[in-house]
Amino acid sequence: MPREITAFSNPLVKRVRSLRDKKHRRDEGLFLAEGLRILTEAREAGHLPEFLFFAKGNDTHPLAAELIAATETAGGEVIQTDSDILAKLSGKDNPGAVVGVYRELATDLARLERSAAPLWLVAERLRDPGNLGTILRTADAVGAGGLILVDECVDPFSVEAVRASMGALFTIPIARAPWDKFHAWLRTGPGQLVGLALEGAVDYRAPDFAAPVFLLTGNEAHGLPPAYAQACDVRVKIPMLGKADSLNAAVATAVMAYAVIDRIRP
Amino acid sequence: MPREITAFSNPLVKRVRSLRDKKHRRDEGLFLAEGLRILTEAREAGHLPEFLFFAKGNDTHPLAAELIAATETAGGEVIQTDSDILAKLSGKDNPGAVVGVYRELATDLARLERSAAPLWLVAERLRDPGNLGTILRTADAVGAGGLILVDECVDPFSVEAVRASMGALFTIPIARAPWDKFHAWLRTGPGQLVGLALEGAVDYRAPDFAAPVFLLTGNEAHGLPPAYAQACDVRVKIPMLGKADSLNAAVATAVMAYAVIDRIRP
Repeated sequence: MPREITAFSNPLVKRVRSLRDKKHRRDEGLFLAEGLRILTEAREAGHLPEFLFFAKGNDTHPLAAELIAATETAGGEVIQTDSDILAKLSGKDNPGAVVGVYRELATDLARLERSAAPLWLVAERLRDPGNLGTILRTADAVGAGGLILVDECVDPFSVEAVRASMGALFTIPIARAPWDKFHAWLRTGPGQLVGLALEGAVDYRAPDFAAPVFLLTGNEAHGLPPAYAQACDVRVKIPMLGKADSLNAAVATAVMAYAVIDRIRP
Repeated sequence: MPREITAFSNPLVKRVRSLRDKKHRRDEGLFLAEGLRILTEAREAGHLPEFLFFAKGNDTHPLAAELIAATETAGGEVIQTDSDILAKLSGKDNPGAVVGVYRELATDLARLERSAAPLWLVAERLRDPGNLGTILRTADAVGAGGLILVDECVDPFSVEAVRASMGALFTIPIARAPWDKFHAWLRTGPGQLVGLALEGAVDYRAPDFAAPVFLLTGNEAHGLPPAYAQACDVRVKIPMLGKADSLNAAVATAVMAYAVIDRIRP
């Protein structure tokens, strides 16, 4: 039987709400995801929440009922509450039908198997959680093996990143590493490092791509540091036909990623 | 000489801050933009603010000095203030060096000259201001003639949309129209309507595109209504190689737009 919580002052509500802050996520090793679609995606990928909140009346939806049953079977705690508390937990006026609290996923380079996919996405000092989530969603769409976050990137487990990923956070392996460690790891095996850059770059449709390609996108405001761009095997640029000199980072990553899978040699 | 304002309670501060709400923007016909980069982009496109706020000490930057001089020459009001008030105006903890208040730009289909560009972007019931701004930024990058917003879309003049556009709001013509009016206008002249759709769609690299192409993207959650998809000359889909069934709307628009300009016949 689900426990019922209706008070904002309930300690579990406060604790879960605190997971919207990075510090608390790090301390607890937990993060938040919301919405039937994303939580179902997580379940199908083998991830069930440690705590599952649903609003009274929402447990009749078949997907919600399946989530509730699976969470209980796995030993997670299911909590019935109301939409006001769900809104408080998710920070959205119009929350999804469910909110789940998940254990943070491993983010080690060591768990990546580079031969498992022809394309890997790599982002350097990404600042915007929406961009990070969108890049994860794109990683899923192009069949990428995973996303590697180089140097100090925004937290992939923030509510905004999880939301923008539309569930891809649960299906796409993520690794975090400083540049030196990433670059050393990359050079221990096959891998073509392709960087989005301006200097010394060729048109993005020109190169011969050879799997596995590691596609590297730089910081939103500054792009790749020159030393990182120099370390790439290929530097590519996307034509800019208007007045601006750059695309949104998630957009540039996606245009490039589709170009790579279109032209890659196995 | 710039006027100086240092009080949060100043009526102009309150009035400008209220422009973060759509209702006030509509009533006043004004909107907010921030940051030297975006305001300079606007100036270069011939748009100067009616009010220009800068933080004390920031007027020594050459771009800021140029903006201040140009705004004064054009009869706009320049206001010296501090970064706390700038933060209040922009709603960001870390505001840009300047905030400008601009007259809203015309958004009529009648002002679009379809033969002026090989590609036009069209979005239907777009909900997210970040997506709208990002699509404007992409429109600039691919040399699109403009962006047409069909049916009830999010306001392109919101602070979030202006920010995500990185200034493209000032350079890319925008039109708003209900579907029937847009479709009737489209069919009065040449124009290939290409819709991102799932049903009856061909791979996005397959069609012969003929300028001017009107590339139509549907609502983030629901995609195009079947009747709108049916009205398209060509329906295209982008391959989805993972578990999810869709890309972010701004990402899908950009991948498609680059495919179109790559393959279009003049």
